[in-house]
Amino acid sequence: MKKTEETLMEKIVSLSKRRGFIYQSSEIYGGLAGAFDYGPLGVTLKNNVKNLWWKMFVESRDDMYGVDAAIIMNPKVWQASGHLSAGFADPMVLCAKCHHRFRADHLEDKTKCPECGGKLGGERRFNLMFKTNVGAMEDDSSASYLRPETAQGMFVNFKNIIDSFHPKFPFGLAQAGKAFRNEIAPRDFVFRSREFEQMEIEYFIRGSEWEAEFEIWRKHMGEWLDAIGINRDHVHEVEISPKDLAHYSKRTIDFEYEYPFGQKELYGLAYRTDFDLKNHGKESGVELSYMDDTTGEKFIPHVIEPTFGVDRTILALLLESYTEDEMNGEMRTYLKFFPRIAPVKVAVFPLLKNKGELVAKARQVYDSLKKEIGVVLFDDNGNIGKRYRRQDEIGTPFCVTIDFDTLADDTVTVRDRDTGKQERINCGRLPEYIKVRIS
Amino acid sequence: MKKTEETLMEKIVSLSKRRGFIYQSSEIYGGLAGAFDYGPLGVTLKNNVKNLWWKMFVESRDDMYGVDAAIIMNPKVWQASGHLSAGFADPMVLCAKCHHRFRADHLEDKTKCPECGGKLGGERRFNLMFKTNVGAMEDDSSASYLRPETAQGMFVNFKNIIDSFHPKFPFGLAQAGKAFRNEIAPRDFVFRSREFEQMEIEYFIRGSEWEAEFEIWRKHMGEWLDAIGINRDHVHEVEISPKDLAHYSKRTIDFEYEYPFGQKELYGLAYRTDFDLKNHGKESGVELSYMDDTTGEKFIPHVIEPTFGVDRTILALLLESYTEDEMNGEMRTYLKFFPRIAPVKVAVFPLLKNKGELVAKARQVYDSLKKEIGVVLFDDNGNIGKRYRRQDEIGTPFCVTIDFDTLADDTVTVRDRDTGKQERINCGRLPEYIKVRIS
Repeated sequence: MKKTEETLMEKIVSLSKRRGFIYQSSEIYGGLAGAFDYGPLGVTLKNNVKNLWWKMFVESRDDMYGVDAAIIMNPKVWQASGHLSAGFADPMVLCAKCHHRFRADHLEDKTKCPECGGKLGGERRFNLMFKTNVGAMEDDSSASYLRPETAQGMFVNFKNIIDSFHPKFPFGLAQAGKAFRNEIAPRDFVFRSREFEQMEIEYFIRGSEWEAEFEIWRKHMGEWLDAIGINRDHVHEVEISPKDLAHYSKRTIDFEYEYPFGQKELYGLAYRTDFDLKNHGKESGVELSYMDDTTGEKFIPHVIEPTFGVDRTILALLLESYTEDEMNGEMRTYLKFFPRIAPVKVAVFPLLKNKGELVAKARQVYDSLKKEIGVVLFDDNGNIGKRYRRQDEIGTPFCVTIDFDTLADDTVTVRDRDTGKQERINCGRLPEYIKVRIS
Repeated sequence: MKKTEETLMEKIVSLSKRRGFIYQSSEIYGGLAGAFDYGPLGVTLKNNVKNLWWKMFVESRDDMYGVDAAIIMNPKVWQASGHLSAGFADPMVLCAKCHHRFRADHLEDKTKCPECGGKLGGERRFNLMFKTNVGAMEDDSSASYLRPETAQGMFVNFKNIIDSFHPKFPFGLAQAGKAFRNEIAPRDFVFRSREFEQMEIEYFIRGSEWEAEFEIWRKHMGEWLDAIGINRDHVHEVEISPKDLAHYSKRTIDFEYEYPFGQKELYGLAYRTDFDLKNHGKESGVELSYMDDTTGEKFIPHVIEPTFGVDRTILALLLESYTEDEMNGEMRTYLKFFPRIAPVKVAVFPLLKNKGELVAKARQVYDSLKKEIGVVLFDDNGNIGKRYRRQDEIGTPFCVTIDFDTLADDTVTVRDRDTGKQERINCGRLPEYIKVRIS
């Protein structure tokens, strides 16, 4: 790892906390490893990303059905999916002396504890699912799990969607929501956390058509990167080798992003065959097939699954947008978010804070923008240059200044974040001017 | 409970499943008590409600800061909040023979098991929080809990918000998200489930001003009911008596809705005093106070907390909107959702499905509406009357029919869900016509 790259992650973590994007969870209690809280700007950025995804992949299509399934499902779901078996477990060893557990495959010396030097026991599988008990009994009969992926919440609703909507084939289910994995070594900020959010699609197809559909979704995933402003040159499609494929997959491509800590997974695209529907059908005794009314053909659909990590998207967006440059002889830091995903769209400044007329007019401009645009900030603190820097640092694409000319001719200065260029715009035209630039 | 009222709940549950609002979770495995999955129409309805809430209480205000905190927080949070102590636990007794547990306060005979007649043990407190283990150790040192309320995620971020945003006083934190309670007896559809969603605000005020602020929020909660279309006559403000108040509260009003199974809680409004910030400050050793820069005054803020149950809102909206009436001599069922929260805004029908010109024109109208309005359906199945009935049942406020006149004069029929009245509208004016009626 290069020194400059370490520094970039430190800058991102520090800016996230300082400006209210992402905080360590339970920070006043020393935090909790692998848990993070989104602050006001982080929530808005995340909502913008999730809403755009939903609009692009669900709302604007005719073949997609959204669901929002429970996080704690019937434990039989995890039996059928394979998550309760060894495939979803890490090999762990326990120290007989200090009782710490370690990933066996991360240890060089598998006999001695790296913490206390005590004797290590034999290798045991440690399941990544968080276990809890549902109901009044605290024994194995009530053991349930927090979902480790959103996918199964869609497979178990396959029949419900068929029954309620009689969808034409092919069609997909989509879900955005939290998933949980008891990672032994959470790390790299929100990259590998224990609680994370996914946006996922299960697209049902004929087995014979999987290769063509795989390519279509591969293309869509690239279009999504373009839509949110992640440079495709920083994302690498990596073919997972047959021996590393998950138990359910026949082909998987990882979309790996160039994080400062290495090139690692951002998104994934998997061909899951008919593994899930077949297994759930077998385990539940409920037939999970599709009946084509026109051909009379009945079959168990196969599945193409594009998965988008929400938190990793946020991290990639912060890394992509973070920019340092010189403007008017001064160093500045800015986040060059695409306007459509920027948390704050426009900031409004009265030139001077102690001139009643300027402030009143600025408030009026602010109110009209707030009504039409949504997230707008008002700032009357410090000189204009300082206010620009504050907005640059959170990625606000436009700053509007109300000055004495405004009182005379009803125009304001609109300053562009990236170029620093300023334009005079008539107040009446302002909401529309901003609107077309943030959509 | 009256017979007719029971029937209404049955109708709601059945319609929810049949049309894709809400399904029993993990249904193919016999479900899981107290867990539900939202189907395509349910997700959209829920998103509409959550987005409207966020817009009204966060985005449109200058004094509100949104957060999205982790569900699994540091367990010390629950020590300080009081949730790990007896106050958040039900008194339970265990049968020595069949090992079932029962709520002690629900049993008439506290010596004999109502299931098997076995001997019941002594009363023990049973905590409502779901427990799990974080990290590699499975002992008390790693015990953590799923949050039983969203509130604490805001209190522990109080200092972060102060440091990042230096908010003017008074100000609030807002959060929408999941919470979990291991209810012994989940019941009444989504009314009392084990996994539920809350929209909550912690509004920080001076202790001396709590009564006035309480009244302001009481008013806002009424305005919210108006905004989503819950008749205020069906909601009753019930003062919680001092002996029934939660351990942190000095005054609480429950907003109770007239569900068919009784008048029960929909929302709550509580004055939590400075209980939470004081306790978290004490337990964490981090000062949680506000410093007023203008007066130099430093103090621990008090809190007014309006809480809105999302799932209960959805249930109340389904109950409020469910209507049976006669139209043109035929019985029909419709959901009279306010257009702004209806999951589908408009449906487009070609009069006949086998007339190419009609279908092509209908597709064109559909595409233009989809682009501008969002959730739009296309239906060419069956006669127009049947299609109206299908849309009525899911609460679609407008149906647009493309007929032979459309081909001649470029006008369509727009039919209003509630009145059944039809109007001819020019295609060019259609998106705007719908837009103003659904906002």
